Formats: sequence, C-alpha cells, structure tokens
Amino acid sequence: MTEQFIRNCWYVAAWDHELTPGKLFPITICDVPLVLYRTDAGEIVVLEDRCCHRMAPLSLGRIEDGCNLRCMYHGLKFNTAGTCIEIPGQDKIPTTAKVTRFASAVRYDWIWVWLGDEHTADLSALPKAQHEPGEGYLYRRGHLDYDANYELLNDNLTDFSHLSYVHAASFMATDVWADTRPEVKAIDRGIRVTRWFGPERAPIRPESQSAERLQGGASNYAMYQTYDYLAPGILLMYASIHDPAVVPTPRPSGAALPKLSVRIDLQAVTPISQKRTRYFFNAAVREIDGGEPMADSALQITEMAFAEDRAMIEGQQKILDLRPGNEMLTSADVGPVQFRAALRRLRAAEARKETANA
Amino acid sequence: MTEQFIRNCWYVAAWDHELTPGKLFPITICDVPLVLYRTDAGEIVVLEDRCCHRMAPLSLGRIEDGCNLRCMYHGLKFNTAGTCIEIPGQDKIPTTAKVTRFASAVRYDWIWVWLGDEHTADLSALPKAQHEPGEGYLYRRGHLDYDANYELLNDNLTDFSHLSYVHAASFMATDVWADTRPEVKAIDRGIRVTRWFGPERAPIRPESQSAERLQGGASNYAMYQTYDYLAPGILLMYASIHDPAVVPTPRPSGAALPKLSVRIDLQAVTPISQKRTRYFFNAAVREIDGGEPMADSALQITEMAFAEDRAMIEGQQKILDLRPGNEMLTSADVGPVQFRAALRRLRAAEARKETANA
Amino acid sequence: MTEQFIRNCWYVAAWDHELTPGKLFPITICDVPLVLYRTDAGEIVVLEDRCCHRMAPLSLGRIEDGCNLRCMYHGLKFNTAGTCIEIPGQDKIPTTAKVTRFASAVRYDWIWVWLGDEHTADLSALPKAQHEPGEGYLYRRGHLDYDANYELLNDNLTDFSHLSYVHAASFMATDVWADTRPEVKAIDRGIRVTRWFGPERAPIRPESQSAERLQGGASNYAMYQTYDYLAPGILLMYASIHDPAVVPTPRPSGAALPKLSVRIDLQAVTPISQKRTRYFFNAAVREIDGGEPMADSALQITEMAFAEDRAMIEGQQKILDLRPGNEMLTSADVGPVQFRAALRRLRAAEARKETANA
Repeated sequence: MTEQFIRNCWYVAAWDHELTPGKLFPITICDVPLVLYRTDAGEIVVLEDRCCHRMAPLSLGRIEDGCNLRCMYHGLKFNTAGTCIEIPGQDKIPTTAKVTRFASAVRYDWIWVWLGDEHTADLSALPKAQHEPGEGYLYRRGHLDYDANYELLNDNLTDFSHLSYVHAASFMATDVWADTRPEVKAIDRGIRVTRWFGPERAPIRPESQSAERLQGGASNYAMYQTYDYLAPGILLMYASIHDPAVVPTPRPSGAALPKLSVRIDLQAVTPISQKRTRYFFNAAVREIDGGEPMADSALQITEMAFAEDRAMIEGQQKILDLRPGNEMLTSADVGPVQFRAALRRLRAAEARKETANA
Repeated sequence: MTEQFIRNCWYVAAWDHELTPGKLFPITICDVPLVLYRTDAGEIVVLEDRCCHRMAPLSLGRIEDGCNLRCMYHGLKFNTAGTCIEIPGQDKIPTTAKVTRFASAVRYDWIWVWLGDEHTADLSALPKAQHEPGEGYLYRRGHLDYDANYELLNDNLTDFSHLSYVHAASFMATDVWADTRPEVKAIDRGIRVTRWFGPERAPIRPESQSAERLQGGASNYAMYQTYDYLAPGILLMYASIHDPAVVPTPRPSGAALPKLSVRIDLQAVTPISQKRTRYFFNAAVREIDGGEPMADSALQITEMAFAEDRAMIEGQQKILDLRPGNEMLTSADVGPVQFRAALRRLRAAEARKETANA
Repeated sequence: MTEQFIRNCWYVAAWDHELTPGKLFPITICDVPLVLYRTDAGEIVVLEDRCCHRMAPLSLGRIEDGCNLRCMYHGLKFNTAGTCIEIPGQDKIPTTAKVTRFASAVRYDWIWVWLGDEHTADLSALPKAQHEPGEGYLYRRGHLDYDANYELLNDNLTDFSHLSYVHAASFMATDVWADTRPEVKAIDRGIRVTRWFGPERAPIRPESQSAERLQGGASNYAMYQTYDYLAPGILLMYASIHDPAVVPTPRPSGAALPKLSVRIDLQAVTPISQKRTRYFFNAAVREIDGGEPMADSALQITEMAFAEDRAMIEGQQKILDLRPGNEMLTSADVGPVQFRAALRRLRAAEARKETANA
C-alpha cells in the first residue's frame, strides 16, 4: 500500500471549471505541492507550489501581467515557464532561480498534470475512453476525498463484485455482480473489463427507479457494461440497456446495438499523499433517457454509493495500518491483479529510466 | 511504557449487555482489531476484525443464519470458528480462507477475550475475586477511555497513596492513605493489597456523605480494604466499614466480622494501543446500605474520581512523551514494583514459549 | 529547520503579569516542560514540570507554605531550589529526589528563562535594547502561537523586505522595503539592522492613518529604523519619524535628532517544539504621539500583520514538511544569513562545552 508513486503519468488535478481567471488553485499530488492557474490568454500553467527562494507556497502569491506569478513572501516573480524574471532590489537573477513547471492537458473537463519531467510528457498516454459522451448528454460532476491509499480505490474499481454488498442499498445491485465474472483483459497501461447481464438475472433490483426506467416498461432487459481502467487510476465506463429480443447470440459489443438507454461514467483517482486520495467523478446520461431529473438522480445515487465505498475503504486502511498482511486472492481478483501488474510495469520502466539517467 | 503487550492473558473487551443479538461490536485490544457478536443460540464469537481477503473490517459486515458473519466488501462468509464457508462466484474455498478466532469467557458482567492462541486459553487464569457481590447487591457500571499507556493506570491502581492528593475532592480522602502503607503481597499473576484503617485516623473526611453514612451515626469507625490486582490490569476490591468496638486485635480479615456496610469495586484496564486505554468499572453496594440512591452516589463519586485520575495520567503521558526518564521509587511503590514484576514474568514466559515454538 | 535547540540562552517564557500569586504557569520551551510560579515573597521559581517520582506534571500541583510546590499525584513536596523536602509516609529523602531548577530574569515585562545549567546563567547574555521605552510610553502586548519552526520566524524578522508583500495590507508598506537594502552588521549574539527612508520614497502608503499621523501634517517625512535581533530570536526595535529638513547628510542615528514621533517594538520568538513556536510582542508608542487611541491602533495593526505572517510561515512549514529543499539566497538575505551564523556559533560553543564536560 505504500509503493512508490509513479511520476511519468497523467494525474487529474482539477475540474476545468475550477480554474477561473485570476485564481490560484493549489493541490498536492503524490506529495508534490502544485499550483495551477489560467492566464488571461487561456493558457493553463502548473508550477511547483514552492518558491525556490525560501519554499513559500506560490499559491499564496499573486498573478501579475495576466500571466506571471509573484511570490508574496519576498516578491520573486516567475513567468509561465517557471523562470524567475524579477528579484526585487536585485539586478542579477541567478539561473537557478526557477521553479519546476509541469505539463498539463485538458480532457473530459479535467485538467491533467504529467508529474514527470515536463519534456517527457506523453500525450499518447493520456487516457481516452472507448465511448465518449458526445452531443445530447447531460453531465453531473463531483469529487470526494478519502483518508486511504489510492491503490485501495483502484482495487475497489477494478473489481465490481463488491457492488452486490457495498452497493446493495444505493445501486440496488443484486448478487449477480458477485456470483458471475466479467471478461478482463490487459490493455496498454491498464485493463478492459466487460460484461453482459441477463435478461435471465437482472443486475439491479426491480424496485430501483433506475431499473424501472431502464426497462422502459419492458418486463426484462439486458445490460452491457464495459470500462477501461488505466494508470494511475482512471475509470472510463460505458453501460447500455437493451431489449433482449434484439441482442444476438453470441453477444457483440453493446455499443453497436440499438439501446434503450446509455450511461457513461468517467472517474479519476488522484493520490494526494500515501494516506489521502481525491476521487473525481462524472456521470453522464443521454438527455433522451430522462433529462435533467434522470441526470440528477444518477449523481445522487453515485454520491450515495461513493459514501458507501469510502466507509469500507477507510475502514480497510485503518485495519491495514494496525495489522498489514497478505491478502488472499479470489477468482474475482483478476482485475485488481492485472491492474497492479500494469502499475508495477510502469514503476519498473520508471526505475530503469532513472538508472539510465543516473 | 512501551513494553510489548502480553497476549496470553484475559482482557476485558466489553460489557456483557453491550452484545445485543444481531449487533457487531468492534474493539481493538493491544493493537489487535476484534469483532464480537452473539449468535442466536447465545454463543459469543470473537474474531479478528479483518477479512482474510483484503483486510476489510468484518465489523462492517452482516450476521447471517443467526450465527455466521459475512464480510460486506466482497461477500466472503465465515462461520463461528472463523472458517470461510462461502466465496461468492467461486466453488473452491482455499484452506487459508479463515480469520483468527479468539477464546472468550464471561465473568462479572464482562466479556473477556484471550488474546493468545485460542487453544491455549487458560480458564484458571481468568481473574476471580476474593469476595464477589452476590445477592442483595446493587451495581453501577461505566467505562472511560484514557489517552495513556495502560501501565500508567496499573501504577495508579496498585498504589492508593495517590488518593490523598488526586482524590481529596471526590473521595474526600484524608492524608492517611499517603502517610501509611498497606500490606502488599505477591500472588499468582499479581498482588494482594490489604489495609485496616482507624478508628484513630479516618480515611475519609467526616463531611463526606459517604463517611456520614458509613459511620451509621457512630462517632468513629474502622475500615477494611483488600484488593487483588491481576494481569493485565484487573482490580477486584472489597471494602467494609466496622464498629471499632467489634474489631479484635490483632485485626483479622474484615470480611469475617460484623460490618456496618460493604462496597465492592471491580475494574478492568484494557490496552487499546500503546497510547490509548479503556477503563471499565463496576461499583457494587449492598441494597441494605442505602439502596438505589447510595448506588447512584457511589457511581457518581467514582466517575468524578476517575476524571481526576485521567487528568493526572494523561498529563503524565504527555510529559513522558516529551522527556522519558527514570522514575525515583518511594516506599509507596511496593505495589507497582511487585505488579510490574508479575507482568515481566508473564512476558518472559511468553517469550520462552515463542522461542520454543519457533 | 530541525537543528538542535540552543540551551545556554535566555528564552521568554511568559509575560510578567501572567504570574499571579498562587498560580502555576506551565509552558514547554524547546521540548522542556516547565512550570513557573511566584512565591509570596515575590521570588520567581522555574522548575522542570516533571516530578522526579513518576514524571507527573508539577503544574497540576499545589503551592504550599507560600513558596513550596507539592506534586498532587503522590504528594512529594519541593522547595524553590527543586529539592524534595517531603515524601509522605517516608522519613528518608534520597539525594536524587529533586527536579531541575532553571534561572530566570525579568526584563521588558517578560520572564526569561535560562535553559542551560542554572549556575551558568549569564545575565550579560540577557538581550538589552539600544533604545528602551521609558517614561511617557504606552504599551500594548500580545502573543500568538505558530505551527512552524522558530527559525522560520527568525528568517522573517531578520529580513523586512517581506513587508512590501506580506504587509501591503496591514502596514500599508510600499515597495521600498523590498527594493532597497538596510545596513546589516554582526553584533554579539546577533545582528543590527538599520535604515533611513526617504523623503524621496515613503515606506508607508499615504492613505495609511499611521502615515498621516506620522507626517504630522507635513507633505513628506524621513523614517529611521534600527533593530537588534538577538539569539534565540529577540527583536528590539526603535523607529522614529523626522522632518527631512532637520536630517543632516550624511544621516546620523535618528535617535539623536528631533523627531515627530517614536515607536518601539520588542518581540520574542520562543520555540515550544520543533514545529510550534510562541511569538510575544510589545508595541510601545509615546503618549504625546497620539495617546491611547494611537497605542490601540498600533496593536491592532500589529496583530493584523502577524496574522499575515503566520499564514505565510505556516504555509512555508507545510511545504517544507512535504519537500524540504535548498533555499536560493538573494541579496535581501544578509540578515537571515548573518543571524543564522550567530546561532551556529552558539550551537558550536555549546557542543564544545558539552564535549569538555564529558
């Protein structure tokens, strides 16, 4: 649970809308204090939140000239590259007067930060969903902080068998999540998890509003769910409900079939420190599947579910703090095991690179 | 203050009445997270509060079949022996799928847990009072948590000379507790402390309601007090008030003599962690010595006294955290010294046993 | 930031008025728990707040006989020298029965404690101001606790270039503090920092009430400021406002010239632990410079300014905790660098002395 953080990776740092002009946005990722802001020209700047002079937080500073950042302790001023361009009362500016700048990107309304060397930032490693919400989708967004290591959240999200127990109340999940196994396959930087449900065994109890609506009045339905889970902890999920009569056998990808409804969930797990994690989530439904009330309901149920997860995962962290131990894997652990292997490969690659550079 | 905990020992985990049917009761003892519950058939079950799968707390689980415990993270189910009897979606259950079960016992309205190997649980080591409250006694119970190491509480309870200072207000104790010394003798797994007071020097100031009542209108009285203090920190005390005219010389055990009143105190010190301790207490008076009002008053004074102890002991812990040091023993320290020797012997025996098993 | 504390040094422990008769005043300095009190005869007693018996806090004790201190755990009584003079129930008092007594002194309404051996207490090392507030001054006093290492406060106070940024709101400081450099010279146990401002560039923005008043209606003014900053972190400052017409060139010490107003600030930085620091401050103005309203205003602005400092310094501490690093010095750092060198010399002298004694 306290393995080294991966640095050569894109981490979600903030919601795009959180970066309003003139505002300094601090967040610590993997123990690295960062400050984010948007210049008047719209550029996103991510700097280490630590002045090179005396380590004061730049997030207590001031944006000047619409783009530069002045430390408000002793007045050093930095440009968007992190280079110091002014030391009050001193003409000469040493070449060491700079703070680390980090590469950033925007996708899915998130601001992503590459924690490794800025010049090695690899846009091809930026997570991309199989199916993205496009026109006609309604979004609902939130985030939640956990007092737990981020890998406990990864374990949770790479194995949905917990839905039957943890989310029996919120999602009204039935036992089928725990009793059956999804198809899990290793993909680049993570895993792909796919399932078809029913109609013989419904994944959601019939008294659920969600189930009622999803069935569209039909007496039964089939559900397709597929998600990629990518380093460091990004869930990109697509789920659709189908009339079983129109689902051929063998069952193909649900996305290509006519569907009664669609839901897309995009989630990001960002380690703040070894024991604290921020969890960002975005639930999107099609406007034609129930409009704003349906979108509100989706968010409400999601928030209820994540409160359930948090209670369990923070409890797990407390137990692990008291008595760490060796877990005992089950056949439901294919997802967690494969995803951890993916993280291990990334860590090993990073270690090799550091050795090569040393 | 941070000596290793003794495991082969009975620890008080809960009040018997706290284990209501269907309820999972978590408590951490000596850094071991435990979950307690009572089956429909009345059996008390004590398991490690840590699922063998992913270390989730079983105390967030669910009792099923009136006796089994299901982990509500991924659904593993355990019987009362701690053996896993179901893994959802998986037929084969590995033999390693189990959680530690602990032996328990009930005495003095407490549930005791043997923290060592279940099969070595030694009922003969279960503390037993010299004089137990029987018929005609009224009980008052409580517990209090201290932010301090349990041995600081043991030190406190094995030397009552502190009554003259710490409890001058609550118990209205006089200087005689500090000025005179009890008889202390080593017994199996602890010490026995005995005193006779007065009538020449009263242990309780005359303005005390307690003293007034205890004197039964007489102008003076003799007081007999005896307690065993047993590993890990169990106080079993009997005190009686006598008409000095009927106390022969040399003074015999007070329990055999005619008495004006009797009070029995049973207390248990349970380490949660090195810096946190639960203190259980049960004050019992005879119904004929004042009835319910007297029992209520006994509890009220006890709670006031333990708040006084807690302020001193938590202060002591803070000082020790800042500057540990060597204590300077006085002649009042016979009790603490002998009791610590008893604990040391138990620790040494445990270490020998571990070496033998290794 | 976590260099060893200097012990052979005078630390401010309390305001003189805080030691009321009969009161036990606890404070921890450099991780040493102390208890202070004043005897009926007026003597100030400073003892380690830790009974030699069982390390109970003496500050939970009781003053007896107008001068002695009884531990209220088991009743040991200590005289003003820290020698145990009574152990209840025991005739013989071991020679080891004593607690450390510390030397103290009173100056500037503060009680100072020498944390080294009492007999080496060096009154010549007690900080003394160049210019002290005498008759006709009004005082305003306060203190504030910081969650930060004391050396971060020292850095702050030995370089006033931060006034232009941190205190632009409270003091209405202009850029001239950051743009120009004071004269800094090493003195015994610290540094002396001196400046003359203007009239060409005012140090305080004209809209400041303070500036308005200081100018005495004149359209411009000159300001003189000098302070000594002495180990462990004592600021003794004098500032005066002058009519520029009466300031000769080269400019002499301002104290010798006719002045429009005077302000004296005495401040003391006392480490509680490596991560917590108490900051005492005393602002004194002349009664003829505005009377009580001016003194009240001086305190109010000072408290506002120190809240600004605290936000920056606690932020700095948090960043340093996450990612310690090497600072990058600027030409404004002459004060901090020279003062740290002074502390280093004191630490080295102390280490030599300990080696010699070993």
